[in-house]
Parts: sequence; structure tokens; C-alpha cells
Amino acid sequence: MSPDVVRTAFAPATVGNVICGFDVFGLALEAPGDRVTARSSDRPGLRITDVTGDGGRIPTDPRKNSATVAARALLRASGWDADRTGIDISIAKGLPLSGGMGGSAASAVAGVVAVDALLGTEAPIELLLQCAIEGEARASGGPHLDNVAPALYGGLVLVRPSASRPVIRLPILEELHVALLHPDVEVSTREARRALGRNVPLGEAVGQWGRTAAFVHALHEGDWDLLRESLVDGVAEPRRAHLIPGFDVVRAAAMEAGALACGISGAGPSMLSLCRGPDRASVVASAMASAFRAQTGLPSSVHLSPVSPRGARVEASGGEDAA
Amino acid sequence: MSPDVVRTAFAPATVGNVICGFDVFGLALEAPGDRVTARSSDRPGLRITDVTGDGGRIPTDPRKNSATVAARALLRASGWDADRTGIDISIAKGLPLSGGMGGSAASAVAGVVAVDALLGTEAPIELLLQCAIEGEARASGGPHLDNVAPALYGGLVLVRPSASRPVIRLPILEELHVALLHPDVEVSTREARRALGRNVPLGEAVGQWGRTAAFVHALHEGDWDLLRESLVDGVAEPRRAHLIPGFDVVRAAAMEAGALACGISGAGPSMLSLCRGPDRASVVASAMASAFRAQTGLPSSVHLSPVSPRGARVEASGGEDAA
Repeated sequence: MSPDVVRTAFAPATVGNVICGFDVFGLALEAPGDRVTARSSDRPGLRITDVTGDGGRIPTDPRKNSATVAARALLRASGWDADRTGIDISIAKGLPLSGGMGGSAASAVAGVVAVDALLGTEAPIELLLQCAIEGEARASGGPHLDNVAPALYGGLVLVRPSASRPVIRLPILEELHVALLHPDVEVSTREARRALGRNVPLGEAVGQWGRTAAFVHALHEGDWDLLRESLVDGVAEPRRAHLIPGFDVVRAAAMEAGALACGISGAGPSMLSLCRGPDRASVVASAMASAFRAQTGLPSSVHLSPVSPRGARVEASGGEDAA
Repeated sequence: MSPDVVRTAFAPATVGNVICGFDVFGLALEAPGDRVTARSSDRPGLRITDVTGDGGRIPTDPRKNSATVAARALLRASGWDADRTGIDISIAKGLPLSGGMGGSAASAVAGVVAVDALLGTEAPIELLLQCAIEGEARASGGPHLDNVAPALYGGLVLVRPSASRPVIRLPILEELHVALLHPDVEVSTREARRALGRNVPLGEAVGQWGRTAAFVHALHEGDWDLLRESLVDGVAEPRRAHLIPGFDVVRAAAMEAGALACGISGAGPSMLSLCRGPDRASVVASAMASAFRAQTGLPSSVHLSPVSPRGARVEASGGEDAA
């Protein structure tokens, strides 16, 4: 074990799908995120000693929690005996559960990065990814590479689970900002997935793959008009929007306020707008929050962030990034 | 009318779908192609005076032929009275009918470009496109922008019929070469389209839009490994390959000979391989032709070309391009 006896890792919120690319695009925010602290212990085994910010709802059984399932996968892959290695894990949830903000992915990624740092494993990022996927899948009922990958790599990524390079970093436009509204209601990822059905009409599918192609081209060219035009979801949104209270009204307010596009973040209920520049994102976020409150009477929280090029990282004990 | 009394336009063969992008990608070859000659006449009306290379099968009624329907659309859009303007059209088909090489698109594009030159219309390319689409749709039962657009613009294009910019030029990798095998059998475009069915399973659709996105990224980055990996058709090929004699054997031979990918050109029966460099394309083309002959006993023709940045153009009377 490395001389470090405590390491804390932060992994950011992520937006799956990025409106036009169901299951293939994901992006990282700067904040909020989850923090996982790994502490070496003389008592053998991987334990969860402390969880905050979850309202008591996250499993503390290390075989069921995304952070520890991911950490255990790393131990196994790196040749450590998980039953003899003593590690205490504490988890500070900054992200909601079932929120469409990649909460379980962030915990899994932070878990694996913290344990990697604690043990000095220096595992390649591809291995960290595989372990985090295992953890996330345990928590959410299926792997969501479009959350796990940006939480680990940062940036805006294209994911293809069965490809030889499952994660491809796409260009980031510096001005591209996210205004994210998280309503204080829950939509289960499983229910959201059921709403999709099993088939896509051919014409809709063609539209969608034309848009994913156009979106990538627009990122490479810095073509904002094309970006706006590509950011349309013909597949998930028509089938899921009814699960999200106030969706139509919030979107109308966002577009009215000058968003490039507004849609469902991952499986929802969070909604995101993509905007050109931080000032526009701020105006759009306010409009979204006002419309949501007026329409539903429910509370919500709002987050503003550029697309962050940085994914998960180890933090120094004071909360700063480690050198 | 301009002082020119005869103008000939050439429009090249095109490959629709480009394997991974059903209905959204298309590319132009240098040759072969169709030639349409427009000649001013004292006798009012738009007539087809001569068709060669079609075995007598193309309609000579100007209201049914793709070249003249397109030309008539241009006359109408440009304020000419098609019934009073005297134009004789002759068509030299270099492309097969129902071949998966964009034959009706090439005739429509060459028709509209020849008449535009004859009349000195100087119509914007977007208008030429719309007129050519009208002509092509008349001939083939539905518009195929993935053939019409590359025949007119050249290059490798992304098409989205209902977008404000329906044609987007993608980067061309200079080394990207096409080996195309045209079997001497026919597959009707309508039958090929029927074979597709009306729905795509969600998982397949996700795979396809991941690949179209990866393909565009690979073109921008010059990433040949990613290009190879993206060039997979999970949608049309599994449903259409049985319509094409020898498909599996020809593809196996192409891959064995070092093609990046091999698939159906448009609705078939032509097959194309994409290759890195002209020498590789030549080896692959030979392998495809041998395998096809050995498997089916049928004749075929083979075409080799880089992705051509040039689309339709007016030729000088000697057959050279006009200045």
C-alpha cells in the first residue's frame, strides 16, 4: 500500500444523451459531484463507514453500492485480495439519486479513482472505466457509459460500448455552457427506459443518425447554427417527456430565453439547456426555474457550468486538487 | 437565351449510404457518369431527341424522364415558359439503371446543369439541387438526396432533407478510394426499400447513430482505425444482402484483400469497398470481381475512383470541362 492513508476523489455530474445522441453522447459538468474518501484500515475488508447527502437511501452493503462494487472490481483486476485489504470508504453524495445527473456513475467513478490513488495502483484509465462501469451497472440496473465515461474522462464524449475504443473525446467549444434544472421529483431510470419501447420507426432513426453526424461535424467546425439544428431528440423525448412535470413549459421558457436547445438530461427528470456563453446560460437557467415553479409549484435546483474538460480527480486533503 | 446553343453537362456516379449512414451519407466518384446535352431549338418545348446507353429502357417522354423533369423544374423556377422555350435534350447514359450507382440522380443533375448553362440561368446550387431532386424522385419513386447531392456538389456529404442546410460537405481524406463492383443483375430500389421494414430495434439504431457520429469524427481526425470500425451497416445490410447474389463471398474477398469495409452501394446490387490508397483499391476490386464470378458465374463491371471533390460540371464541346 502507498504511504498515503487517505485519498479523496471527486467525480462530476454528467449529462447523458446530450439531447440528440441517446446512449452515445455524454458530457461532464464542473460541479456538483460526488466525493469518495478511501482510508486504509488495519481491519481487513472493504467497508462503507459513512454516507452523507443521500437521505439514507444508498445501500451501505459494499456489495451493492456503486462506489464499492467499482472499487472491488479494481482490487480484483489489480491482484489485491478484497477480503484481506483493509479499506474504509466514506461517500459524500453531491448528486441526487435517479436524477438524470449521473449520480451513480459519479459515485462509481470517484470510488475507483480514490481506491486507485490509495493503493498506488496507477491503473490505466481504460481499466478504471471498466471497473466503474461494473459499479454503476450494479446500482442502476444496467451500464450507462454515457454517464460513466464523461465522469471519468471529462469533456464531451462519444461512447460505443462494444467498440475497441469505447470512449472518444469530441472537441469542446469553449463557449458551450449548460443550464441544468433538477426538479425535486423522481423518475426511475427503469421506468424511463421502459417508456422508450423496443423499436424506432425507420424515418425517426434516420433523422437521429443524421443529427448525431451533424452534431459531431458542428463541434469540429465550431458551427453554432448547425449545433442548434442538430440538438433535437426525435427518439427519447417524445416517449419520456410526459414523465417529467412541466417539461413543455420549461423548454418553451428556455428557448424563449435564447437556449440553443433544451431537452431531458439522461433519463430525467433533470432538464438541460445548452447555451452559447455563461451569461446566456444564466438567463436561461432563471427562466427554466421560474417556469418550472410557476407550472408545478415544486422546488428545483439549478446548476450552471461550462462543458468541463476535466473528469474525476484526486483531491488533496484540504479539498484542493492533488498535485 | 445565352449565345451558347449547345451545352453538355456531366454528372458522376454516386454511392448512397456509404455503408454506415443509411439515407444520410453519399459520395461522388470521378467516373463513370451520365452526360446530358441541351441544344436550343426553334421548335418550342422541351424534347428528348436521343438516348444512348440505356438499352432503350429510359422513358423518352419528357414528363417522365429524370433529366427533363429536373430541367422543366428549373425552367419553371427561373420564370421560363417550358412550353415555349425550345430545347432538345440528348442523354448519354454511362450508368446502369437500378444499379446502386445513382443513375437517375446523375441524369437529373446533368439535365438541370446543362439547361442552366444553356439558358445562362446561373441558378444558385440550392435551386439546382431542388430541381434535380424533383427529377430524380420522378424516376425512382422517391427522392434520394444521398445520390442527388453528391452528384451535384461532389465530395462526401451528409444530407438531411428537411434541414435548413440539407447538404453538408464533410472532410475528404485524399487517400480514401472506392472499389465498386456492379453485378449485371437488377435489384429494384422499391423492393430493396420494402426489405427494410418500417422499424429498427432500438439497440441497432443506437449502434448506427454511434457509428455515423464516429465516422464524421474519423474524417475530421484522419483516423483510419476509427474509420474502419465505423463503417458497419447494422440496418440495411442485414435486410438487403440476400437480394444481392454473391454478397457474402464478395465481401469476404474484399476484406481478405485489405479493404477497410465492404457493403452495399445505395440500394444495390452494386457493392463497394472503401480502401486506403489507389493500389489497395485496385487489389480489392480484382478480388471482388474474381469472387463474384466464381460464386455466381455472372458478369460484372468494376470501377475504381478516389472520393471525387468535384460534382457535376459543364463540359466544353470537345469533352473537356468548360472554363
